[in-house]
Amino acid sequence: MKTIVKNDQTAVFALGGLGEIGKNTYAVQYQDEIIIIDAGVKFPEDELLGIDYVIPDYSYLVKNQEKIKGLFITHGHEDHIGGIPYLLKEINVPIYAGKLAIGLIKNKLEEHGLLRTTKFFEINEDDVIKFRKTSVSFFRTTHSIPDSYGIVVKTPPGNIVHTGDFKFDFTPVGEPANLIKMAEIGKEGVLCLLSDSTNSEMPEFTMSERKVGETINDIFRKADGRIIFATFASNIYRLEQVAQAAIEHGKKIAVFGRSMEAAIEIGQELGYINAPKDLFVDSQQINRLPANQVVILCTGTQGEPMAALSRIANGTHRQISIIPGDTVVMSSSPIPGNTTSINRTINQLYRAGANVITSQLNDVHTSGHGGQEEQKLMIRLINPKFFVPIHGEYRMQITHAKLAMDCGVPEENCFIMDNGDVLALTSETAEVTGKVPSGSIYIDGSGIGDIGNIVLRDRRILSEEGLVIVVVSINMTDFKIAAGPDIISRGFVYMRESGDLINEAQSLIAKHLEKIMERKTSQWSEIKNEISDTLGPFLYEKTKRKPMILPIIMEV
Amino acid sequence: MKTIVKNDQTAVFALGGLGEIGKNTYAVQYQDEIIIIDAGVKFPEDELLGIDYVIPDYSYLVKNQEKIKGLFITHGHEDHIGGIPYLLKEINVPIYAGKLAIGLIKNKLEEHGLLRTTKFFEINEDDVIKFRKTSVSFFRTTHSIPDSYGIVVKTPPGNIVHTGDFKFDFTPVGEPANLIKMAEIGKEGVLCLLSDSTNSEMPEFTMSERKVGETINDIFRKADGRIIFATFASNIYRLEQVAQAAIEHGKKIAVFGRSMEAAIEIGQELGYINAPKDLFVDSQQINRLPANQVVILCTGTQGEPMAALSRIANGTHRQISIIPGDTVVMSSSPIPGNTTSINRTINQLYRAGANVITSQLNDVHTSGHGGQEEQKLMIRLINPKFFVPIHGEYRMQITHAKLAMDCGVPEENCFIMDNGDVLALTSETAEVTGKVPSGSIYIDGSGIGDIGNIVLRDRRILSEEGLVIVVVSINMTDFKIAAGPDIISRGFVYMRESGDLINEAQSLIAKHLEKIMERKTSQWSEIKNEISDTLGPFLYEKTKRKPMILPIIMEV
Repeated sequence: MKTIVKNDQTAVFALGGLGEIGKNTYAVQYQDEIIIIDAGVKFPEDELLGIDYVIPDYSYLVKNQEKIKGLFITHGHEDHIGGIPYLLKEINVPIYAGKLAIGLIKNKLEEHGLLRTTKFFEINEDDVIKFRKTSVSFFRTTHSIPDSYGIVVKTPPGNIVHTGDFKFDFTPVGEPANLIKMAEIGKEGVLCLLSDSTNSEMPEFTMSERKVGETINDIFRKADGRIIFATFASNIYRLEQVAQAAIEHGKKIAVFGRSMEAAIEIGQELGYINAPKDLFVDSQQINRLPANQVVILCTGTQGEPMAALSRIANGTHRQISIIPGDTVVMSSSPIPGNTTSINRTINQLYRAGANVITSQLNDVHTSGHGGQEEQKLMIRLINPKFFVPIHGEYRMQITHAKLAMDCGVPEENCFIMDNGDVLALTSETAEVTGKVPSGSIYIDGSGIGDIGNIVLRDRRILSEEGLVIVVVSINMTDFKIAAGPDIISRGFVYMRESGDLINEAQSLIAKHLEKIMERKTSQWSEIKNEISDTLGPFLYEKTKRKPMILPIIMEV
Repeated sequence: MKTIVKNDQTAVFALGGLGEIGKNTYAVQYQDEIIIIDAGVKFPEDELLGIDYVIPDYSYLVKNQEKIKGLFITHGHEDHIGGIPYLLKEINVPIYAGKLAIGLIKNKLEEHGLLRTTKFFEINEDDVIKFRKTSVSFFRTTHSIPDSYGIVVKTPPGNIVHTGDFKFDFTPVGEPANLIKMAEIGKEGVLCLLSDSTNSEMPEFTMSERKVGETINDIFRKADGRIIFATFASNIYRLEQVAQAAIEHGKKIAVFGRSMEAAIEIGQELGYINAPKDLFVDSQQINRLPANQVVILCTGTQGEPMAALSRIANGTHRQISIIPGDTVVMSSSPIPGNTTSINRTINQLYRAGANVITSQLNDVHTSGHGGQEEQKLMIRLINPKFFVPIHGEYRMQITHAKLAMDCGVPEENCFIMDNGDVLALTSETAEVTGKVPSGSIYIDGSGIGDIGNIVLRDRRILSEEGLVIVVVSINMTDFKIAAGPDIISRGFVYMRESGDLINEAQSLIAKHLEKIMERKTSQWSEIKNEISDTLGPFLYEKTKRKPMILPIIMEV
């Protein structure tokens, strides 16, 4: 980066979070000081078969580790903190975060055995963290998790503001966003704003969490039977609303699922959930309570096969099964890739006799991200000279940039950037001057980066067409088939019912191999190719399928 | 079925289309007369890896083929006609359908070489098809394809009405639904109504196709550059609206994609698309026209990788690439499973410089199915004694039944049925008395039914974890390893970068095999198990993955 950013310029770039929802990882660099903002993971799309997470390529940070001043966390969601263990395995950096985020990160680092070696600093809204040439301060925002902050990085050319994820909610649960401080930051002067684009295609002002609370209250008041309430564990405001509704209507709450139990515990510990101890009961006790006094709180709104709600729905939960008359509340919105499994869960719940309340027809959920009017409000308050829409697909960044233009940011001052693009800023100018490495690293099991495109391509073929293995022993001294060819398949056809097909394939291969080996000069590669070239078209003709063909030749 | 339906009863059942969207296949039987209504396919959900279509188990129809009077088709969509070739491969039945559906079915049967042996009867709304004990008549409905009909089957216990897919549109493109005839059918008396549940969770009255036309007209008027209009080929009303807007604004249309070309041709032939010959130009001619006179009409609204729009978006289309200033209209709504690929296409279009108009923010699409008010209107007009919600997931059937109760059908007269359930009706009573076979048959390539759960389970493991093959030659006379073990993998890890892992695995397997072969009594199965039992835990410990392990033993 020495060559692409001049000494009097501040560089702003992302390793993840541009052109995508997920793996948010941003950096602000002035000379020899680097401020990292967030280190998230992305959950893989369908075609990344078997991949658990995706993280960014951290090589730029590894190479420049002595310059890094700290990792600053906007809030505790996985797409902002999930990458931390993988980053810390490569470099040791101090972490600055709000108290809830610190709690969540510590849990995570403990699992990875990285807790002891990591330094934490808890941030409060009034803190200013000063380094030699730069400093970092914060402003409170509203999001679907407590302790969410926007971040201001002061650099000599000017101030850089990163919103984190945000919405505006003038009647929030928990502390309100600090509009006054945002206005002051704007008044002081902002060189560049990086702002959350997630809901830039939503014209509506996001519904208040308070309205969700009213709907929950209403449902709790009317329900004659048990209530099974499913939501994201990290949405601690929602959990607090459930707790308050339960108290108001004389119900008790039984909590199911490891992440939900942890969230209730940490939420009470940090004071976000205000409930008497006896509000929570265990799975034994609910069986002794009348149905209309029972609330079952669990995860599983996305149809995740191992989550409590999915197991309750399909009848495999050890403690809870649906009783006709149960009301199930899915307090969430479906993440697009999950629609099929969510639908399956809902149908199973209905079949078992439950009534299911979803956010499609009822106000039982609201987004954590602001719509167009909120995005414009942020731009008006922060009043930046340059604007970079972040955290969203390309189309959302484009739409967000148009909103900025509507609010008076000149078109040439808006930058639609890709991961790795380096924006070089002076106090007067901004320009994309180069790129840092920013590829995607796939994590599957405990391996990092050992899955790439070839492995994924193979998995795709295997998953759609299956596999045919041809094993043949060849005597390479007299060029004769010693044994085989034998055919083994997986994921292709029922072998038991396909005897004729297999026999025909075997004799076809044998015939072809004998012919090419008559020349007595055959190489392994030639024999392998002959097997693939013979068997592929034959199987396609017979089955219209193109399985992966794997010839295995044994020399005897 | 002899045992479960009495001689004076009419049986109503589905082989597909209940508890699901797709493979609609219904039957009405009175004594020795069976009327089949529709024979559709279902497109597979994600977990059916590599499966092309799903069809119902036709065995009941095959067993009772001499009773079948005909296959009656409500309209020409794949989920209502796609199963016909597979049904006709098992039994020969005459087909009764509207003229557009007949055109589409004939194309399909020609591909399967079944056209010559099939008898067709074109139906018109006033036709009555009489059999010995039953008769079949029709009423015109509105749907997103022309020539859509509801079907009335008269049987001695009473009349059975099947709506097909429908909405109400009081200002449709094309002929309006016949409300008067529906009212007359209702007045005459309906024993049982089977009605489309697809949009039972939509409170809105579906927007008129005319409104979509106005939006299209508006877009065509304002566009300075080329328009790329993508929609479903079968939505011939939409194509007609594009044609009329192009005529009004002096534009020419170039058609891309085989199914779109066929739709334009058949639409003009049957008089649904009214356009002068010179409205349509070829791909050469559009390069000679000013950009604002060009409309490119194509498929690909679902992000299908091979469709014209996807290839235009990713730059692999042979004739068309995006020019900055192009307006792309996605005249469709996303089918849930397709969101990821649709988003990818939209992002690619934006990156290439196009403006993209979707139905999310603009009225460029409307559903083919009626919402709650329309479903209630149908129930009020047909005024049935018994009600069976069809064509929809379980939750939609439940919601639809509640609407029927709101309209005065007693709860005990509403039947939420599964595929295969047989409803036995007298003129006074209805009861589910039994089941006919109704499983799902998977079609992959040209094979029918040779893919089952084992093959799918294998594909799933292969797709998520990959495959490790261990090849070892063993001399079974002295129980010594003659060659190997060699390890080959696909979809597991990068082999080149995992040399140590593989070497360690090889020596581990060798050590274990030598040990068990010391006994000089080892069976193949024992050796195979030893390989799997040794390698599985080792790989899991090292990689946290559980690939499929396939031991291959060669005897020398």
